[in-house]
Amino acid sequence: MELWFSETFGDIRTAWRVKEVLYHARSKYQDILILDTVPFGRMLVLDGCVMTTERDECAYHEMLVHPALLAHARPQEVCVVGGGDGGTVREVLKHPTVKRVVLAEIDEEVIAVSRQYLPSLASALGDPRVEIVVGDGARYLADHPREFDVVLSDSTDPVGPGAALFGDAYFQSARNALREGGVFVTQCKSLWADADSVRDSAARLSRYFSTVLPYVAAVPTYPTGSWSFLLATQGVDARCTAAADRQALICETTRYYTPAHQSAAFAVPAFHAGA
Amino acid sequence: MELWFSETFGDIRTAWRVKEVLYHARSKYQDILILDTVPFGRMLVLDGCVMTTERDECAYHEMLVHPALLAHARPQEVCVVGGGDGGTVREVLKHPTVKRVVLAEIDEEVIAVSRQYLPSLASALGDPRVEIVVGDGARYLADHPREFDVVLSDSTDPVGPGAALFGDAYFQSARNALREGGVFVTQCKSLWADADSVRDSAARLSRYFSTVLPYVAAVPTYPTGSWSFLLATQGVDARCTAAADRQALICETTRYYTPAHQSAAFAVPAFHAGA
Repeated sequence: MELWFSETFGDIRTAWRVKEVLYHARSKYQDILILDTVPFGRMLVLDGCVMTTERDECAYHEMLVHPALLAHARPQEVCVVGGGDGGTVREVLKHPTVKRVVLAEIDEEVIAVSRQYLPSLASALGDPRVEIVVGDGARYLADHPREFDVVLSDSTDPVGPGAALFGDAYFQSARNALREGGVFVTQCKSLWADADSVRDSAARLSRYFSTVLPYVAAVPTYPTGSWSFLLATQGVDARCTAAADRQALICETTRYYTPAHQSAAFAVPAFHAGA
Repeated sequence: MELWFSETFGDIRTAWRVKEVLYHARSKYQDILILDTVPFGRMLVLDGCVMTTERDECAYHEMLVHPALLAHARPQEVCVVGGGDGGTVREVLKHPTVKRVVLAEIDEEVIAVSRQYLPSLASALGDPRVEIVVGDGARYLADHPREFDVVLSDSTDPVGPGAALFGDAYFQSARNALREGGVFVTQCKSLWADADSVRDSAARLSRYFSTVLPYVAAVPTYPTGSWSFLLATQGVDARCTAAADRQALICETTRYYTPAHQSAAFAVPAFHAGA
């Protein structure tokens, strides 16, 4: 028997050969599926969309976390919104300046399933510096003004439970949750499939942050294989870092991020540059 | 009726919704198919593998051509091996120093079909600076020592007619076909799917060139959405260019390449860096 799982994204469909379906159930919020795939190892799928795989999660998680944390001189308190699989938290904890990471994840089933099936990501959630808040990340940020050095939005796409995490109210709360010199980053779709939507999000973010830059990473299991992020600060140029020692330490364990990526990731295609 | 075309690459399969099959026939060398797809416009498929599409060909052709041509101070004579669709030649001709481009393509049917169905690429082949040689590109290079400033290997994958274009004899001919200060570049698979093969090709190239660097571009319709290239010189660092004026001129018409890509493209994933 040949088993394939496919995700259809508009007029593009990608499929991966599957060894085994390890888990499938519906939580209060969404359909949760764990597959063991041949090309990318274990795969977490929410509502039919690939969230992460063992093999290429490094590209997504390292690139969501390190450009932002290395743009900050001394990140100590970090909030991750979404990201119940633990991959983002794991990367944040590599920064020795970090004393506290709050994970605000709305769906506790995602955390439980990831702990069981994706230990290479979720084991980070057991670190004593991690505080898990099961609830609405947008509300959490609104309730915690001026508390964080970095806020990382590790959301699902802007459909289902992730929809609120691309709106004005959320971006304003993220800005208000940051201390002076704070850095906000959100994952933000593919420039090849949704450039207009990335532009819209950047314009919306620009109401609350003076510097908003798109950057990209290659994530093979996401639609078009190329993913974008938006990094927002009050005037900080994230394309260089003052923390070269910390960067070198981080790069001892990364599988995707290298020192060159701190600036190189911001080279977006000409069709989007200046947007 | 819903029509989809899919390419299976090992344990990954990608499919695109198709409006219409515009052409399908077998040449002396391979199966040639032109599709009109919904997400990427017209698509050229050889032996079942996507070669190029109207929408994302910019990423592949601009990134095959401009890093190499801008690494050369004054490219005048250029040889393109393969590339019968004309996209690579079109980008080469944007460089005002170029006086002559030889296109050595083994399959004249690819040229004819591209002229008919992909005019935005193939119309460049009518430029008076272009010399079309229908024949074996490897032999052509071997027969033309010290004639070119840049050799661009725009091959199919190393199966079928493209197999010879990754071998020792071919790389040696490419080196010998270059004049002093010459630059060679070849497209070279996905680092996410074939990193070992890219390493092998780089090692083989290093027998003939003192500096061999991998670089990457996002090409959504290629397997994994991320493609690699190998740029080979005798000691030239392609990550910067002395030809800033020429670069600015090129960037007036590019859809993917920006000045930042000249160095940023060389930021390969950590799992491949230093390889």
